[in-house]
Amino acid sequence: MKTITSTSNELVKSWKKLDTKKGRKEAGEFLIEGEHLIEEALRYGRVKTILVREGLEHPFLKRNETMIVSQKVLDQLSSTVSKAQMMAVCSIVETNPENRERVVLLDGVQDPGNLGTIVRTAVSFGYDQIVLSKECVDLYNEKVVRSTQGALFAISVVTRDLPEEIKLLKEEGIMVYGTSLHEAVFMKQRKKAEKSALVLGNEGSGVSERVLNECDQNLMIEMDQFESLNVAVAAGIAMYTLRYQ
Amino acid sequence: MKTITSTSNELVKSWKKLDTKKGRKEAGEFLIEGEHLIEEALRYGRVKTILVREGLEHPFLKRNETMIVSQKVLDQLSSTVSKAQMMAVCSIVETNPENRERVVLLDGVQDPGNLGTIVRTAVSFGYDQIVLSKECVDLYNEKVVRSTQGALFAISVVTRDLPEEIKLLKEEGIMVYGTSLHEAVFMKQRKKAEKSALVLGNEGSGVSERVLNECDQNLMIEMDQFESLNVAVAAGIAMYTLRYQ
Repeated sequence: MKTITSTSNELVKSWKKLDTKKGRKEAGEFLIEGEHLIEEALRYGRVKTILVREGLEHPFLKRNETMIVSQKVLDQLSSTVSKAQMMAVCSIVETNPENRERVVLLDGVQDPGNLGTIVRTAVSFGYDQIVLSKECVDLYNEKVVRSTQGALFAISVVTRDLPEEIKLLKEEGIMVYGTSLHEAVFMKQRKKAEKSALVLGNEGSGVSERVLNECDQNLMIEMDQFESLNVAVAAGIAMYTLRYQ
Repeated sequence: MKTITSTSNELVKSWKKLDTKKGRKEAGEFLIEGEHLIEEALRYGRVKTILVREGLEHPFLKRNETMIVSQKVLDQLSSTVSKAQMMAVCSIVETNPENRERVVLLDGVQDPGNLGTIVRTAVSFGYDQIVLSKECVDLYNEKVVRSTQGALFAISVVTRDLPEEIKLLKEEGIMVYGTSLHEAVFMKQRKKAEKSALVLGNEGSGVSERVLNECDQNLMIEMDQFESLNVAVAAGIAMYTLRYQ
């Protein structure tokens, strides 16, 4: 089995470039860390190379795609404070669901934890796709990946121009709901629809006007006292209500 | 107006102790940072002392409780990376609502961001009180305070033994719902009640057995695919559904 101990090894240098969005895009790859995430990635056939720390005993050592690396190499590639034991290089794949009935669109969500949590929730509630505007934080950012807890492998996530995508959704007979605190109806009063798409916005400024203008109806979550909700919480409530209520 | 420039000033030393839960408990005080949080604290009469950076022009300078301090003093007291411009010493007050109809109980919620977000959501949805088990992260931890965005001043938050508190809630005619992934009914199938309390659990282990045993009914959020939800998202969905659906 191949062992890499030096951080100046060419492969290590190429993986180090996956630190940035640009590097990930060029390579079509991203890094993940930890056993649970690697297992999820394997389950969905997305692992190119597994890196296991020298001296560690682990079933991954029996796999063809595994290499042994020194702790120094892992330290070089990992962005967490704790010592990484294992990492993997995964492929970026943009899949499209054959038939979409429930879609979430995110207009400029910036916080990695919020995006990761929304991905997790969407998978739980059986959504078919997440569409990101180009202003969103990168899905393959390591903090986003970590906070999805592996759910990113279980759902189609694509980046699109949202007004264009909303036109397509409407052509497919999908009702598109915006979210807004002005000129919106309460969740309970919405026009119900079999197939629906939901747009959530940026943490500070919400959904942009040019996107809201394309939506069929704008929704607002019922509240007793005005306090803006965290976007991952608002997304959870709206996704749940559209799906089960 | 009093000006403090030295970090060895006795007042600064006493405020520095508010860094720890023990120090905050002993003093009955905690620190907050930034204009928005200070304004919220003032609105609820919770500010003892405002600290404004030397040279900064701000309406707070006209207030009796304001002192001017050097950047060094603020750096000593602040735990954020960015340079603090203003901070305040606030009083810890445990209030009890006169009449409670909607209560959230948290059994060992550990993540500061999750607790802060749950506090924010509870205020939005008109909940009367949040009851924490003693295993929860401290409400006055600076990360929790920041993530409440000031909502902590708008609601009663107390620490109690949860099984004892649940007995009291039931005596008050409040239906107490646990949350669990086993032996639970879906939200939609719950026995509805006018007054309700909802128990959410630790990020890893959920609500403990000894607490679940005291609940009237255990609820589970409907899901298409099994993925555990983030506790702040689950709390948001359950609080919203009990209140408005």
